Amino acid sequence: MAAPAAAAASAAAAEPTEAYVAPPVHLFSADKLRTFTKRVFEHFGCPEEDAASAADVLAAADLRGIDSHGVARLHAYFELLEAKVINPKPDVRIIHETPSTATVDGDNGLGLVVGPKANRIAMDKAKAVGSGWVAVQNTNHYGIAGYYPLEAIKEDMIGMAMTNTTKLVTPTFGIERMLGTNPIAVGVPCGKNPPVVIDLATSAVAFGKVEIANRTRKPMPEGWCIDKEGAPTTVPKEMMEGGALLPLGSDRERSSHKGYCLSAWVDIMTAVLSGANWGPFAPPFTLRSGVNATEKRVGKGIGHFFGAWRVDGFRPADEFKAQMDDWVDTFRATKAEPGKKVLIPGDPEREALEERSRTGVPLTEAVVVDLEDISRVTGVPFDRALFAVDEA
Amino acid sequence: MAAPAAAAASAAAAEPTEAYVAPPVHLFSADKLRTFTKRVFEHFGCPEEDAASAADVLAAADLRGIDSHGVARLHAYFELLEAKVINPKPDVRIIHETPSTATVDGDNGLGLVVGPKANRIAMDKAKAVGSGWVAVQNTNHYGIAGYYPLEAIKEDMIGMAMTNTTKLVTPTFGIERMLGTNPIAVGVPCGKNPPVVIDLATSAVAFGKVEIANRTRKPMPEGWCIDKEGAPTTVPKEMMEGGALLPLGSDRERSSHKGYCLSAWVDIMTAVLSGANWGPFAPPFTLRSGVNATEKRVGKGIGHFFGAWRVDGFRPADEFKAQMDDWVDTFRATKAEPGKKVLIPGDPEREALEERSRTGVPLTEAVVVDLEDISRVTGVPFDRALFAVDEA
Repeated sequence: MAAPAAAAASAAAAEPTEAYVAPPVHLFSADKLRTFTKRVFEHFGCPEEDAASAADVLAAADLRGIDSHGVARLHAYFELLEAKVINPKPDVRIIHETPSTATVDGDNGLGLVVGPKANRIAMDKAKAVGSGWVAVQNTNHYGIAGYYPLEAIKEDMIGMAMTNTTKLVTPTFGIERMLGTNPIAVGVPCGKNPPVVIDLATSAVAFGKVEIANRTRKPMPEGWCIDKEGAPTTVPKEMMEGGALLPLGSDRERSSHKGYCLSAWVDIMTAVLSGANWGPFAPPFTLRSGVNATEKRVGKGIGHFFGAWRVDGFRPADEFKAQMDDWVDTFRATKAEPGKKVLIPGDPEREALEERSRTGVPLTEAVVVDLEDISRVTGVPFDRALFAVDEA
Repeated sequence: MAAPAAAAASAAAAEPTEAYVAPPVHLFSADKLRTFTKRVFEHFGCPEEDAASAADVLAAADLRGIDSHGVARLHAYFELLEAKVINPKPDVRIIHETPSTATVDGDNGLGLVVGPKANRIAMDKAKAVGSGWVAVQNTNHYGIAGYYPLEAIKEDMIGMAMTNTTKLVTPTFGIERMLGTNPIAVGVPCGKNPPVVIDLATSAVAFGKVEIANRTRKPMPEGWCIDKEGAPTTVPKEMMEGGALLPLGSDRERSSHKGYCLSAWVDIMTAVLSGANWGPFAPPFTLRSGVNATEKRVGKGIGHFFGAWRVDGFRPADEFKAQMDDWVDTFRATKAEPGKKVLIPGDPEREALEERSRTGVPLTEAVVVDLEDISRVTGVPFDRALFAVDEA
């Protein structure tokens, strides 16, 4: 049930990635996917509220065009729950705190469940004393980092979220994987304009870009990766088979030490401060890559770090948001290269959201087959004929 | 009175920049330079404590090998004070606050005076409620960003500092200067190991690198700059005459949008949140470049943003510092390119500090002439024979 070519092309155009001709896709209703996802989590014993929250994080990724972090990952979460590697009913609790800071033990829950709870604690602390900061240990992958500051924005706060992830990135001058792609997300509320939403991996590119190049058999640009011997490579497979991603900046001449510093910062805030596994010891995300594969344990699970600053902790929110509107308009009007325009952080994801809310979420055949497999095992109904938007 | 060639060569080797043969230098006692600097500020009416604090920030830059931000800038500050563009006796005060946040009005003082006071407020708030955040408006350039987290480290805090600066950087796809080099600095205490200190401009390179290439008549690497038409250039003059620096990442393919996002974040936290002039409206640093040159005012002065998290707001400080020692040892042992080693953020500056504390601070003839000029006008004695370490 392929979507009409026009819709597929337009969904692809909304993707925030480089020119890449997507394979044929099926368009699905975001709401129906969200309900399916929620029921799958409930099947494993997640309380309803937790399951809804986790499904919401995945749906946000799909709607915002970050396909690698949406239901395409549900099968990986499903396998971890099925293998009882992740705790479906975590007791997420504060183990250390001050009025503006806390460390939370995620009790080995889904990051998609632990993350929203810990982020809420940070926001509540900000409400009470102006800012709130929560380091999280004993947790798992939490979806798109950008989800969390979007919550803060709703309450006129500047939100921040970081997580460490499985090692993929080498430090400057290094030739082995030592750090994850360790994202930083920041969201800032505006007035009449949509919010400014930053969500970036601190590596030159996210691993998903390498996977796309591999799938489409395209060489990668220079400055993304090294092979397992440490030599620069443009062949995706050479990175994937024991090579590494380079930090943002690509090489020393173009300041890759800055990308390395930012990734190190994220690693320290999320994992050393919380008591999670840092650097090369962060456990792998998927069962397939071996959950117990790391050489050494230096803490519990992976780590997150959430923050919120109340805007009116600094100046009246209306005043700030009016200035932000001017800021956005000013940057949008930057003199640009012919045929290009300067974007505001969050533009590509917001455009995808607008598009996909109308047309549906595009899923590749491989992802649909994964969802059908989950349905078969869990008994949660998934009917591609009913789900597809073009059938509605 | 040129320093012996060996000492000069060894000081140059300690510099954190790319291979660059420095012009002949004179070695000066850091303490004597600090005293001279302090007296110059006092000459203009700065209270003794403020003058000492300002001199300390400049001395830290010189000792840590960041030559562009030390006494080499004293003449620029001197001109601004002489022209009464900067207030030598600012009433630095909190104009808005919550228990963990504040906005400070720098009263148009030297950033070197306002910065340490605002940073202290952030640290005091962290002492009280776990973390502290201070946005500063109506201030001026504050020296090296790395100075401020070093203060927080002394009290077992993770420190953070940002500032916006005069426009030099274009957003991704843009062809005009819209943002400053907007640095982010973060410092993390360790136990037996020296602290981890991050201090990075969010542009591909700092403007000082372009100046060095220009002085030494060397082409720049690709990915640093565009010319005034927006075309990529490796000719320093073409950037300096109306061109722009590129964001960290260099081009879209290597994720310059991430550098743009980080720079935008700094601009928002330092200037929009505080009520300072943001983006292209940040006033120029030097008198020569025209203090009143900006088209429009959207706030007061430039802006800073300081933060401190008390480590024991998250976990016992000793536990954290022991983990950080392990973290540093682990990253230092990363398998590296032949003949290279993986550095820990802060290594190059600390090595410069150790070297220069012994041998003295290398100043070029041009800087010494500038200091002699300041001495002539202010009457504060500067005797190159007495100051030079090799004469001591």
